[in-house]
Amino acid sequence: MKACLPQKAVIREVGPRDGLQSVRTLLTTEQKCEWVREALAAGQVEIEVGSFVPARLLPQMADTAQVLHYARTLPGLFASVLVPNLRGAEHALEGGADLMVLPLSASLAHSMANLRKTPDEVVGEMRRIRAARDASGSKTLIEGGVGTAFGCTLQGEVKASEVLRLMQALLDAGADRVSLADTVGYADPVAVARLFEQALRLAGDRFWCGHFHDTRGLALANVYAALQLGVDRFDASLAGIGGCPHAPGASGNASSEDLAFMLASMGIDTGIDIGKLLALRRKVARWLDGEPTYGTLWKAGLPGHFDRPHLAG
Amino acid sequence: MKACLPQKAVIREVGPRDGLQSVRTLLTTEQKCEWVREALAAGQVEIEVGSFVPARLLPQMADTAQVLHYARTLPGLFASVLVPNLRGAEHALEGGADLMVLPLSASLAHSMANLRKTPDEVVGEMRRIRAARDASGSKTLIEGGVGTAFGCTLQGEVKASEVLRLMQALLDAGADRVSLADTVGYADPVAVARLFEQALRLAGDRFWCGHFHDTRGLALANVYAALQLGVDRFDASLAGIGGCPHAPGASGNASSEDLAFMLASMGIDTGIDIGKLLALRRKVARWLDGEPTYGTLWKAGLPGHFDRPHLAG
Repeated sequence: MKACLPQKAVIREVGPRDGLQSVRTLLTTEQKCEWVREALAAGQVEIEVGSFVPARLLPQMADTAQVLHYARTLPGLFASVLVPNLRGAEHALEGGADLMVLPLSASLAHSMANLRKTPDEVVGEMRRIRAARDASGSKTLIEGGVGTAFGCTLQGEVKASEVLRLMQALLDAGADRVSLADTVGYADPVAVARLFEQALRLAGDRFWCGHFHDTRGLALANVYAALQLGVDRFDASLAGIGGCPHAPGASGNASSEDLAFMLASMGIDTGIDIGKLLALRRKVARWLDGEPTYGTLWKAGLPGHFDRPHLAG
Repeated sequence: MKACLPQKAVIREVGPRDGLQSVRTLLTTEQKCEWVREALAAGQVEIEVGSFVPARLLPQMADTAQVLHYARTLPGLFASVLVPNLRGAEHALEGGADLMVLPLSASLAHSMANLRKTPDEVVGEMRRIRAARDASGSKTLIEGGVGTAFGCTLQGEVKASEVLRLMQALLDAGADRVSLADTVGYADPVAVARLFEQALRLAGDRFWCGHFHDTRGLALANVYAALQLGVDRFDASLAGIGGCPHAPGASGNASSEDLAFMLASMGIDTGIDIGKLLALRRKVARWLDGEPTYGTLWKAGLPGHFDRPHLAG
């Protein structure tokens, strides 16, 4: 099994976006910038810093332009943002994001509830975003993120054939990269192995990232299944914060610190200093006092021998 | 990957033993019997019902003989107990347990702290237990459980060569079956794949069970790694209760209900009715009011479409 595993992997930190949009507490712009700065200092070189959605819908994301502006001053940081539509993409282009993610729900019901567009209308938006990017001469990459890829609380089953059709459509419409998200925590390792294998065959090098929610405790097992296919980039959120408004009881994202521990344990280089990441977790959890946080490593701490080669030989 | 997975798997419920010995609340004998009865009714056909340790050390286990006696009246139940030594084994033989587990810590430091014996002295105990079993004419099976197999909070690294040496010694001393336990939550999927592969080669059909603590959130990922080698029996604990007195911050065992969900999702038959198991979890969590419980499925619930073939096709 190990032969298939990547030697390096990236944990894309989505806490400042996916995490913060799901909590009631409003962090200040200064706190968000501190988070981004310290996450980078801990080795998180890719961070989703916010979302260009209307502030009346998500007041937590109202200062995304300022956070992005600050993020661009940090050498070595690859800063991404979420954009729900062309208008958001224009903000991302103006702000000089390194990458923007356009989410698409493969579940029609979820797509209508969340974005008030059909999946195919979102594909149309991708086409317009690509045209705007090309017209602007910007180097901002465009990622199409196919969500509810393993099912949906509203609709139930989501067919893999539909997920793959929409992924292909996003690529045809100009996405530089595509990714798969288990938005509601319905995936399991076998389903991940099956769907990711097909997605990788379809998208090749343009397949970019796996995004697993930990709603039913399987996020890290699902990551492991994807790693075995060579996937080497995963979204995760510090303290596991996040969730989905349409996934009742959702237990947030994969926790960045637990995932960093798993990968480091397995000998996969993430460039992350887990001690620094745990210190940042303590700070952010303090800022979010009263909000649910997740993960287990912060309670147990690193194994005592973790600085030494740990795999018993 | 899927080709290697077993079609059926057993979740051996260790909550009444590993779980209850780690909590302060004392359940009554009637509650324990109710737990065992309803776990069986939910499809848990193998249950570790208690531990034959001196009551002054673990008052929670003082009524193991009564619980075992009750368990033996339940048709279809395979009842096991933990025994720390020959004296415990004699109780297990008297009580007619289907199986008794003799734990051995591959970590010398942990073995001394936990059992006040060296690992090799425990091997000697296995020899005496086997002789006693054979002399008694009993059909009680004997399992040697090699713990701290992935490292130890007291000693740090535990060498795989030592784990395997002790496993072989247990087999040579008469163990019918052997198993591996990550007592303190130091394992990761790669380490599991590596060590279990060697253990399976060594023990063959006599390799019996994997036991993963969820101290750092990796229990289910570790189960998945072992499943891929064909391992088809795992210890788990309802509500994830349990831990280890020598593992500070330990977050308990793999949670039976989350594991049952993962296996069912993957199409692996466990015979468990997850709805019934969740109902039992609610009851046991009520009994243990104030004690930490774990797992995620109880919060999120089963996916809405879970009664239908769920793997998107």
